[in-house]
Amino acid sequence: MKPYREMSKEELRSELEELKKSYYDYQGMELNLNMARGLPCRDQLDLSMGMMDALYSGADLSCEDGTDCRNYGVLDGIHEAKVLLGDMMENHPDNLIIYGNSSLNVMYDTVARAMTHGVMGSTPWCRLEHPKFLCPSPGYDRHFTITEYFGIEMIPVAMTPTGPDMDEVERLVASDDMIKGIWCVPKYSNPQGISYSDDTVRRFARLKPAARDFRIFWDNAYGIHHLYDDHQDHIIEILAECKHAGNPDLVYKFASTSKITFPGSGIAALATSENNLVDIKKQLRCQTIGHDKVNQLRHVRFFKNINGMHEHMRKHAAILRPKFETVEEILQNDLGELEIGSWTKPRGGYFISFDSLPGCAKSIVDHAKKAGVTMTGAGATWPYGKDPEDKNIRIAPTYPPLADLTTAAKLFTVCVRLVSAEKLLGEM
Amino acid sequence: MKPYREMSKEELRSELEELKKSYYDYQGMELNLNMARGLPCRDQLDLSMGMMDALYSGADLSCEDGTDCRNYGVLDGIHEAKVLLGDMMENHPDNLIIYGNSSLNVMYDTVARAMTHGVMGSTPWCRLEHPKFLCPSPGYDRHFTITEYFGIEMIPVAMTPTGPDMDEVERLVASDDMIKGIWCVPKYSNPQGISYSDDTVRRFARLKPAARDFRIFWDNAYGIHHLYDDHQDHIIEILAECKHAGNPDLVYKFASTSKITFPGSGIAALATSENNLVDIKKQLRCQTIGHDKVNQLRHVRFFKNINGMHEHMRKHAAILRPKFETVEEILQNDLGELEIGSWTKPRGGYFISFDSLPGCAKSIVDHAKKAGVTMTGAGATWPYGKDPEDKNIRIAPTYPPLADLTTAAKLFTVCVRLVSAEKLLGEM
Repeated sequence: MKPYREMSKEELRSELEELKKSYYDYQGMELNLNMARGLPCRDQLDLSMGMMDALYSGADLSCEDGTDCRNYGVLDGIHEAKVLLGDMMENHPDNLIIYGNSSLNVMYDTVARAMTHGVMGSTPWCRLEHPKFLCPSPGYDRHFTITEYFGIEMIPVAMTPTGPDMDEVERLVASDDMIKGIWCVPKYSNPQGISYSDDTVRRFARLKPAARDFRIFWDNAYGIHHLYDDHQDHIIEILAECKHAGNPDLVYKFASTSKITFPGSGIAALATSENNLVDIKKQLRCQTIGHDKVNQLRHVRFFKNINGMHEHMRKHAAILRPKFETVEEILQNDLGELEIGSWTKPRGGYFISFDSLPGCAKSIVDHAKKAGVTMTGAGATWPYGKDPEDKNIRIAPTYPPLADLTTAAKLFTVCVRLVSAEKLLGEM
Repeated sequence: MKPYREMSKEELRSELEELKKSYYDYQGMELNLNMARGLPCRDQLDLSMGMMDALYSGADLSCEDGTDCRNYGVLDGIHEAKVLLGDMMENHPDNLIIYGNSSLNVMYDTVARAMTHGVMGSTPWCRLEHPKFLCPSPGYDRHFTITEYFGIEMIPVAMTPTGPDMDEVERLVASDDMIKGIWCVPKYSNPQGISYSDDTVRRFARLKPAARDFRIFWDNAYGIHHLYDDHQDHIIEILAECKHAGNPDLVYKFASTSKITFPGSGIAALATSENNLVDIKKQLRCQTIGHDKVNQLRHVRFFKNINGMHEHMRKHAAILRPKFETVEEILQNDLGELEIGSWTKPRGGYFISFDSLPGCAKSIVDHAKKAGVTMTGAGATWPYGKDPEDKNIRIAPTYPPLADLTTAAKLFTVCVRLVSAEKLLGEM
């Protein structure tokens, strides 16, 4: 096959006819497959069933320091959970708060607190005319949902292969004191699987924001979610780097075990500077007496330590690697020479990001939907759901069994080709 | 003994001398006892250890409808948890949202949401000059902490043996549209153990607040926390009563299993009208993907149904009843004839409320503290920690073992007598 743009009208027409036949065949299969969300699959969930035995009726549910995890108390998490998640996040336990089951909830609460009470004594954001956030795009739709909900204006910033366009980030935060934050997924980013380069992280740590209550929302959701043992991305630890740069309070760093044990039944954590912790705990002690310590203890007893966690993640990788490779292979085989799309080849995380020809993403996702394969809605990876070029599609290969995934990915490439051929024919 | 006020100066002086000796004896014992917070004791926690076996590595963690509790999803809780907590709260499962580990957190989030987004489309409370809450007092300090944190002015309303002074509540909510809510613990109230009379509940359901975004925060924390099998308080179910009265959206009702299974590792719920649920879920879906379904399932599998829960509560009662009765007996024996204090005799809940002579509570609590017995800080049961008569003391008899509790209660009566005798002598 040659690139579509090099085909004659006749060649493209005949290609389109073939594709339509193929598409109708898929429609006849009455598929009901889902590549929409970053859900672990059943085999992955089975990996953590041992956690259900980590605590039992005869067990002592006390911490090393004697705290009875069954009773009230311990606002910021039990020490051994701080050690485990601190190791996971590459932060000192003293810099952590262990929360409940969802780091998204922690991020929401962090924005909510800034809205009503500001950041370390600053004017509450709800009193400002026009607070803004920078949103490296494509990015994570649930981040954008939070800032949209609070009426915070979202400004897209381009993603590059080394992270957000830092020239733009530096320029914007320095020039506008209404810019109060930036959403970042620094490692195996959602949806592109990009890991920020050393230079990017260093420039983040050295930002000179006009707003003293500007914070980087550093969602390290995939910190240890590698697909390979030998080819792993590494990023510079941001808290330490900020401290070196004389900007110790610049970052809120989030993580959880959602995609390590059970999504919805894991434990979440926030790591940040001492000053930020004092500020946060002032609020947290009004919100709750404490989070679920029994579940914290359950995680600690199951993993024992960070080595146990890494061992566990290798098992996840063994399940996910073939899925990513299958999708990449199908994309390469079916689209590799056609020059109608490009995609990322991440070494970790949960997503592959696909860019179609401009103006095609919505139609591709619609076509897939009508043939029984649900993808993340086109546009979802941009603030307000508005992809200015209508080209980005997030592929989530983790949930379907390999056979279904193969079918879904092949249908997807048919949809890409069909919509692209129609577009190019229309332009002829 | 005769009432202190009927004693002569000499009698009272000699009584004071005796009391001081007794007090110094207690100081010499170097006690370290705690009657400050409503903590279940170790024996109570042991009752729920079986819950740690309710789920195990070989168990199927699926709901009846096939939902895999281990994965993401189900924003408002699994159906069987709604049935269980619905039965507990006397509400239809469809009127419930199941949350995480803390109903206090749900109440905080409910106020926080109203601050930034109002209630069912009303002006966000943070945009108002002066939002206010009614606070029946004495009441629960952590309620007051929430409204204080958000800068909501708190107006105390007197508690009577049948609940809040409803004449006052009706008058205030009808006359001031800045009054946006009221904190209620309607059954076995904190700290008095009072249950609202039928008339009180009916008048609540028929309130005509000037503010259409006024809500009753109905914290039914002790709904099934009886001390006796035969003498139990019953209150009218508020949601149904509000519906009857044509005020279906007036109430947010909260509950949790914190003092049924493990505090901090239970499940919380909110019950309210369909309109309120729609309003709440709009926000909730921005805040989280869902709460801990595995823990919801664990509770359901452990209790099976509401009968299992009631059976379980009888075991709690068997542990708590002697503690309450011991304290009441000591109060009666040591103070019964002296007319220097009164106290409640609740049939459920977690507290006994003690009223000293005016101006004595802080000093009594200080004296107890200096002899090694920590009580809830005097004033804590009032908004801003300010008990206008300095007389209310919350006694929490649940946590200490019976022997320690006996010592602590006896010391407490010594402190009451000592401080009262000094006060009366000073007035002679």
